[in-house]
Amino acid sequence: MKNIVVFSGSAHEALADEICSNLGIERSPVKISRFSNDCLQAQLLANCRQRDVYIVQPLVPPTQEHLMELLLMVDAARGASAKQITAVMPHYAYARSDKKDASRISIGGRLVADLLQTAGVDRVLTMALHAPQVHGFFSVPVDHLTALGVIAEHFRGRDLNNHIVVSPDLGNAKQATLLARLLGLPVAAGNKQRMADDKVVIESIVGDVTGKTAIVLDDEIATGGSVVEIVHRLVDFGATSATVVCTHGLFTGNAVEKLTGSQYITEVISTNTVPAPEDFPGLTTLSVASLFADAIDRIHSGRSVSKLFNGVDPAYAPPEEELPGLF
Amino acid sequence: MKNIVVFSGSAHEALADEICSNLGIERSPVKISRFSNDCLQAQLLANCRQRDVYIVQPLVPPTQEHLMELLLMVDAARGASAKQITAVMPHYAYARSDKKDASRISIGGRLVADLLQTAGVDRVLTMALHAPQVHGFFSVPVDHLTALGVIAEHFRGRDLNNHIVVSPDLGNAKQATLLARLLGLPVAAGNKQRMADDKVVIESIVGDVTGKTAIVLDDEIATGGSVVEIVHRLVDFGATSATVVCTHGLFTGNAVEKLTGSQYITEVISTNTVPAPEDFPGLTTLSVASLFADAIDRIHSGRSVSKLFNGVDPAYAPPEEELPGLF
Amino acid sequence: MKNIVVFSGSAHEALADEICSNLGIERSPVKISRFSNDCLQAQLLANCRQRDVYIVQPLVPPTQEHLMELLLMVDAARGASAKQITAVMPHYAYARSDKKDASRISIGGRLVADLLQTAGVDRVLTMALHAPQVHGFFSVPVDHLTALGVIAEHFRGRDLNNHIVVSPDLGNAKQATLLARLLGLPVAAGNKQRMADDKVVIESIVGDVTGKTAIVLDDEIATGGSVVEIVHRLVDFGATSATVVCTHGLFTGNAVEKLTGSQYITEVISTNTVPAPEDFPGLTTLSVASLFADAIDRIHSGRSVSKLFNGVDPAYAPPEEELPGLF
Amino acid sequence: MKNIVVFSGSAHEALADEICSNLGIERSPVKISRFSNDCLQAQLLANCRQRDVYIVQPLVPPTQEHLMELLLMVDAARGASAKQITAVMPHYAYARSDKKDASRISIGGRLVADLLQTAGVDRVLTMALHAPQVHGFFSVPVDHLTALGVIAEHFRGRDLNNHIVVSPDLGNAKQATLLARLLGLPVAAGNKQRMADDKVVIESIVGDVTGKTAIVLDDEIATGGSVVEIVHRLVDFGATSATVVCTHGLFTGNAVEKLTGSQYITEVISTNTVPAPEDFPGLTTLSVASLFADAIDRIHSGRSVSKLFNGVDPAYAPPEEELPGLF
Amino acid sequence: MKNIVVFSGSAHEALADEICSNLGIERSPVKISRFSNDCLQAQLLANCRQRDVYIVQPLVPPTQEHLMELLLMVDAARGASAKQITAVMPHYAYARSDKKDASRISIGGRLVADLLQTAGVDRVLTMALHAPQVHGFFSVPVDHLTALGVIAEHFRGRDLNNHIVVSPDLGNAKQATLLARLLGLPVAAGNKQRMADDKVVIESIVGDVTGKTAIVLDDEIATGGSVVEIVHRLVDFGATSATVVCTHGLFTGNAVEKLTGSQYITEVISTNTVPAPEDFPGLTTLSVASLFADAIDRIHSGRSVSKLFNGVDPAYAPPEEELPGLF
Amino acid sequence: MKNIVVFSGSAHEALADEICSNLGIERSPVKISRFSNDCLQAQLLANCRQRDVYIVQPLVPPTQEHLMELLLMVDAARGASAKQITAVMPHYAYARSDKKDASRISIGGRLVADLLQTAGVDRVLTMALHAPQVHGFFSVPVDHLTALGVIAEHFRGRDLNNHIVVSPDLGNAKQATLLARLLGLPVAAGNKQRMADDKVVIESIVGDVTGKTAIVLDDEIATGGSVVEIVHRLVDFGATSATVVCTHGLFTGNAVEKLTGSQYITEVISTNTVPAPEDFPGLTTLSVASLFADAIDRIHSGRSVSKLFNGVDPAYAPPEEELPGLF
Repeated sequence: MKNIVVFSGSAHEALADEICSNLGIERSPVKISRFSNDCLQAQLLANCRQRDVYIVQPLVPPTQEHLMELLLMVDAARGASAKQITAVMPHYAYARSDKKDASRISIGGRLVADLLQTAGVDRVLTMALHAPQVHGFFSVPVDHLTALGVIAEHFRGRDLNNHIVVSPDLGNAKQATLLARLLGLPVAAGNKQRMADDKVVIESIVGDVTGKTAIVLDDEIATGGSVVEIVHRLVDFGATSATVVCTHGLFTGNAVEKLTGSQYITEVISTNTVPAPEDFPGLTTLSVASLFADAIDRIHSGRSVSKLFNGVDPAYAPPEEELPGLF
Repeated sequence: MKNIVVFSGSAHEALADEICSNLGIERSPVKISRFSNDCLQAQLLANCRQRDVYIVQPLVPPTQEHLMELLLMVDAARGASAKQITAVMPHYAYARSDKKDASRISIGGRLVADLLQTAGVDRVLTMALHAPQVHGFFSVPVDHLTALGVIAEHFRGRDLNNHIVVSPDLGNAKQATLLARLLGLPVAAGNKQRMADDKVVIESIVGDVTGKTAIVLDDEIATGGSVVEIVHRLVDFGATSATVVCTHGLFTGNAVEKLTGSQYITEVISTNTVPAPEDFPGLTTLSVASLFADAIDRIHSGRSVSKLFNGVDPAYAPPEEELPGLF
Repeated sequence: MKNIVVFSGSAHEALADEICSNLGIERSPVKISRFSNDCLQAQLLANCRQRDVYIVQPLVPPTQEHLMELLLMVDAARGASAKQITAVMPHYAYARSDKKDASRISIGGRLVADLLQTAGVDRVLTMALHAPQVHGFFSVPVDHLTALGVIAEHFRGRDLNNHIVVSPDLGNAKQATLLARLLGLPVAAGNKQRMADDKVVIESIVGDVTGKTAIVLDDEIATGGSVVEIVHRLVDFGATSATVVCTHGLFTGNAVEKLTGSQYITEVISTNTVPAPEDFPGLTTLSVASLFADAIDRIHSGRSVSKLFNGVDPAYAPPEEELPGLF
Repeated sequence: MKNIVVFSGSAHEALADEICSNLGIERSPVKISRFSNDCLQAQLLANCRQRDVYIVQPLVPPTQEHLMELLLMVDAARGASAKQITAVMPHYAYARSDKKDASRISIGGRLVADLLQTAGVDRVLTMALHAPQVHGFFSVPVDHLTALGVIAEHFRGRDLNNHIVVSPDLGNAKQATLLARLLGLPVAAGNKQRMADDKVVIESIVGDVTGKTAIVLDDEIATGGSVVEIVHRLVDFGATSATVVCTHGLFTGNAVEKLTGSQYITEVISTNTVPAPEDFPGLTTLSVASLFADAIDRIHSGRSVSKLFNGVDPAYAPPEEELPGLF
Repeated sequence: MKNIVVFSGSAHEALADEICSNLGIERSPVKISRFSNDCLQAQLLANCRQRDVYIVQPLVPPTQEHLMELLLMVDAARGASAKQITAVMPHYAYARSDKKDASRISIGGRLVADLLQTAGVDRVLTMALHAPQVHGFFSVPVDHLTALGVIAEHFRGRDLNNHIVVSPDLGNAKQATLLARLLGLPVAAGNKQRMADDKVVIESIVGDVTGKTAIVLDDEIATGGSVVEIVHRLVDFGATSATVVCTHGLFTGNAVEKLTGSQYITEVISTNTVPAPEDFPGLTTLSVASLFADAIDRIHSGRSVSKLFNGVDPAYAPPEEELPGLF
Repeated sequence: MKNIVVFSGSAHEALADEICSNLGIERSPVKISRFSNDCLQAQLLANCRQRDVYIVQPLVPPTQEHLMELLLMVDAARGASAKQITAVMPHYAYARSDKKDASRISIGGRLVADLLQTAGVDRVLTMALHAPQVHGFFSVPVDHLTALGVIAEHFRGRDLNNHIVVSPDLGNAKQATLLARLLGLPVAAGNKQRMADDKVVIESIVGDVTGKTAIVLDDEIATGGSVVEIVHRLVDFGATSATVVCTHGLFTGNAVEKLTGSQYITEVISTNTVPAPEDFPGLTTLSVASLFADAIDRIHSGRSVSKLFNGVDPAYAPPEEELPGLF
């Protein structure tokens, strides 16, 4: 297989550049045109023939525009005889739509996985899917990275006495329990109650947070509404303050205002799977570009990607026994 | 097969209502939600089980939003056990992207056809595709309507002495020649020359327009730039004035200003496959709702749709010989 | 569509008979043969042509045998020109294998969904999937029933003072929170820690269970090991006794001995999605046959299945607005 | 990928040999057998395992025989574990059937594209498709060559004063306008009128041809009827004589007689995408073998094919910006 | 489902008419056109919308022409929204190509099955496949009829003393053994030896034919070479004379001459799955039209097709046990 | 393509080891887990990324368990980004289920072929399919080996005077005739009659076996019932003794007892495509491991597999003419 070629849609060119820089290559240009009737067209401005093509595009707002850009770039790469097309979606936002929690609704997470395959995607490289089952929505191989190692690294060396990791949702607390174990901390969770169609309240906190500093972990923060609410409930139940951590920090709507306005929130941390908002100077951003670059390099050269996660998450750890010489 | 159920996305509810009114049924409600991360979700608020479901959604701006709405509604209908799902796209805007006129570009017209099938579309009902070959991009049956009959009807009874039908593009003059024959008029065409990537000029007019009133026919008018240019070139070559006619009148950008500002354009005519702009009072709008309703009724009851176009377009006319009793 | 035809593999003929009895029809016979080389063959002994065929087969041990029986029956029904084939799998056991929690492992839940579609399944009717996302593993429509209504009904009328609903797994507590709300009770959860590849211990209980009677809810009980451990940990943390409830009571290995041997377990409740063990006289069995029969009847006649779950689970409730006359 | 292997069906072995000669390799033998019941069978007489296989077969009469040969050779190559199978169809005759211009007709251009993919084709290499949209009928990558450069080269150096390029069909004049620009000439077009099912007449000539020598360009000439008619109509409108040019010169029926019998036709030019008739000594044949060989070489080695068309046709030109070092 | 519509390609209109006559309906017309470049086009001249469409076309010489006609008619019917398309191929000639008996050859029997499915066939109705395994080449349901009942009926009432049924091929003697049992006769077989690529000789006769009248049964007779050879070898081994019987009597090449010229052949019998040659007055033709009509009627009305073969062939007999009221 | 990686399920690890030993590589480990609910899970313990993966698993009893293991290993390999996955099934037991010999039965041979492709198999390597047509059930390339060369080799050098090769089934005598020719012997066959659903008797022997030693050849021996019966019938018809040979010696039920208990059976021979029973000391086992290793080596390096069978079976022989330098 010929060289790696990396393209980027308009969703997050800075991350694509940082990944390319880690790989020691130039990003290849793409021309996205908009017809006067608002239809999009993608033209890849570098030879794809027999190349190992990577298209970087997190599904961030305007999400539909970015998704269509991605589909069109994949279609163009396929038509241009790419050898292998990997959709690099650091944030697969449609994973939020992963089940039928009401009658006759779409399951966007599965639908978009199918659309990508129809367009010609051979492989997906992503991070921190909203639910691990979403992996199974794809028919093509998925390399699913985790930011937990990067996040844990951020906390190492700090005094974590009297800290507790908190999941905002009792029904979805797997990542919080993993981070808790990496940091040697206890775990608690909010118990959400859906009051009406558009209203969710946190009924109670399951676990004892009295006198503790909370590390609230969520996969994605959008408007920040629920994470601010869990912080306030934690304080109601005796917590002293909170650090808010997420992989995908979209900070849409008035999220920045809400998060910086809360006196109990001492730090907000996100990775750069999505572009940071311009008006959030206090945000701590952790880069995952080298993780993605390393994964691309391993995919391209046929080395194990799971090696990247030794000791971070048992779900990503390599199997115990391995044949020497094959890795 | 159970009753017809008609849903509409947010693209053109007025047309959907007019079609339903022609069918004598109520439009069934849909709930389109936007997650805080900008992902969309569709919920169909009427039973689809074993129903013959029609989803009305022309691909008008914001096109990507409307396309995704459509795909999600189709996914929801399939998951809700619809018997047959027809995507009713009065304007299939991605048909403009129908060929590879540069290296490594996407062919959006084919890609979107495949995406629709992946989502679960069983049939497409559309009108005035940009090129007739786009029909062949779909793997599912397509019922392809024409507005030429409605347009010709509009001109009948008028004095058409000294009129000529003009196609703006010599390379794509089929519809203009058909309208010319329906009205018994001669035909001319502009010869476009692409000067640069974003610049097309009309080099010459092929055919004699001296002293004539031109009926300029295009399938779609978006920004109106090229139609205004052809009108001016027609005047340069001796035409006296022009009526501008199209099936899909998007009138994006400053199209209204351009069209109403030209002293040579005496009338602008469009059908209602797409919503009319609010600020274009002089626009003549011809309704195609009854054509769509009639087609839906014929599809549902298993009667011939081609009968609708007797005498309008030989491409739509029924075959000469037919078995009595089978229609 | 012609009449309903119901077949059953050898997994659970009693349930199939009870469903048929609720539908007021006879179960149609199947002949499963085993070649001398251990390959299986299925022959359907009733006409399937244009029929609406339902094949009842929960994936219970010996699971591979029952899965292959199901695939072969589906293949035979397709070859015999069935109009529509519904795999009725009251227990879809492979849903347990729903994610990649180690490198290079199979995702059986998705694979088996694909195998069923390859064999010719048009629709799946199932109950209490291990995770709701497994719904999205299927490309065909899934009608996903819940036993929570039947379970809640069992507890209604009892004095539930001082009771608490407990999920054995903090990372998967959605069903427990739903049952808690149906019964107006609080909720707690065990925090599992994986010690080694084959060893999971419950590190702590998140939530206060002191002096409470626990209603421990799990979707499936197999060897009973983890449910007995959670009960003992609950007692360590102050609970007085426990009722154990599940949808799918397999009770494999020495589960019966373990469950009846614990002095803290006062009742064990399961539905009949799977056959009850013969040697478990104290087991309380709740029948879901009428739920399945009602769902089949609604599927066949094109009525809404979600209506079945009004007030049980918002995920199954019908949409708020509905068009009168369409249901 | 291992070496190139080139096979040829019986349609045009001379072209395959010329392509192989340009590539500096031997053509690999094929054995096409005909069973006594008239069914065909193909056996490839060279190892295909992991090879890059090219099968040369223009769809020339007897077209159905040659198509079936091609499908069977592709099937055999796939079963023989070819790495990549390219159908080299210098003339894709079924492209003529590219739209529904009557009710309930087949769209052979799309159907045959699908049949080829079903047989196992991974890529198509073709030339001068009847309409550029036919490209989108294929789900596999298509490398679409043009003969316009070769044709223009033929005319360069001649005195083209007073010449005009003429398209026989106003509705399909794209190629004629491209050739006109390459040669710096004006363009005209015939306006066809379908009188009855089997009768087309040219109603008028759009554009001024008085006193001009016409270069009449068509993609395919079969019986020659319409090209002779357009020449006579050109003369009626004042043209002095005509040169007839096409890419695919089938010359079926009494085409040779018609073309050589017209006093106004001074030269007939075709490429060798299809075999030249034996009884047409005056025919000028331009070879496209080196173009095909060059394209195969570029496909095999992963170099850009669009480079072949620099300056010929903007649709084939490479994108403006390119990353140095990747080509 | 709406009425039955029966079309016929040009392969065997007489059989299609006889089937229609048995069904009491008119055959619907088709227009097969040949473009001047030898491509075919099919137009169906009767409404197919929601109809149950049957297309009658045995694959007889010119086989490729008839296969392409069939594929195009199927494509047209699918595009015209047929509800269900059944390819009625009384003779599926490509079944002869059912295995890889040499390296790198095509398996036409499987390929053509896949091509038919790609074109849009929902079901196949055929008779006397060369090998019963060919049934498994199709992904769509196949109703596979047998002519053995019709053939056996022909012999009943005759004095069959001293008769023996003979299979020309020891390796493929299943049908001969079935006919032998229906008639209560012994069986023998020729042992073929392939001498060279194009030469097969019958080395010996396995079984004792001395003094017997042979009933030689083959599925298909094309040039008649091997059947005449087996007759001569039978005589060498002591047989007195032979009756030659087949389902598919193509009689290509000089078959008629060979068969009528042999003094040992007293009768030649074929069914009308294929057109009888005009110059074979002595041929006994048995009609299978009523069998096909009955099968179509049962398919359309959802009744069992296997009922047709009660007592003829255990492979076609209905299952022993059946639910009353379902048939 | 990177190195060969060979995995084995639990069906026949000894054969996998012998193949690996012939290839000079280590077998890579697999971990097959059984959930407490009896579902299986496969984990591949060696890097598969871009590797050429071979999974050895004959379908021997417990057949369903071994099939599911295979499907899960294939799924895991695909998810782990294997470059090419070959299912090495030395015995494809489901080939026995290759036709519809009764109404509404499954065709397991085709179904399992489709299941394997769904799981992700790219190629199949197998031996001695029950019928050669089963090759055509697979959509992926199949390399179909024969053990006839190994078996013939075993007999060479022996005095074969007065020997005859016998096929137990007249309707399926192809392999016996091939072996007879390799050894220069005559051939005979049993004529089976199915008496009832579970009872088959051999009615007669076609061919003269008087005074002969029979070499009875079958592809598979399971319970041994029919092979013992044919031996007894041979003796009834005058044969003196018999050697029993098969490719796939399963010896299930009391086969060993039956075969060793017959005084007429002087030797039983099988290959090691399946594990030999532990309690059958007199069994002669011929190894096919080197054949499989050689085939894998040729597949991996792109050399012809048919070369392996020069002079053994014309169906496997290479084509006559070959291009020098390509092999």
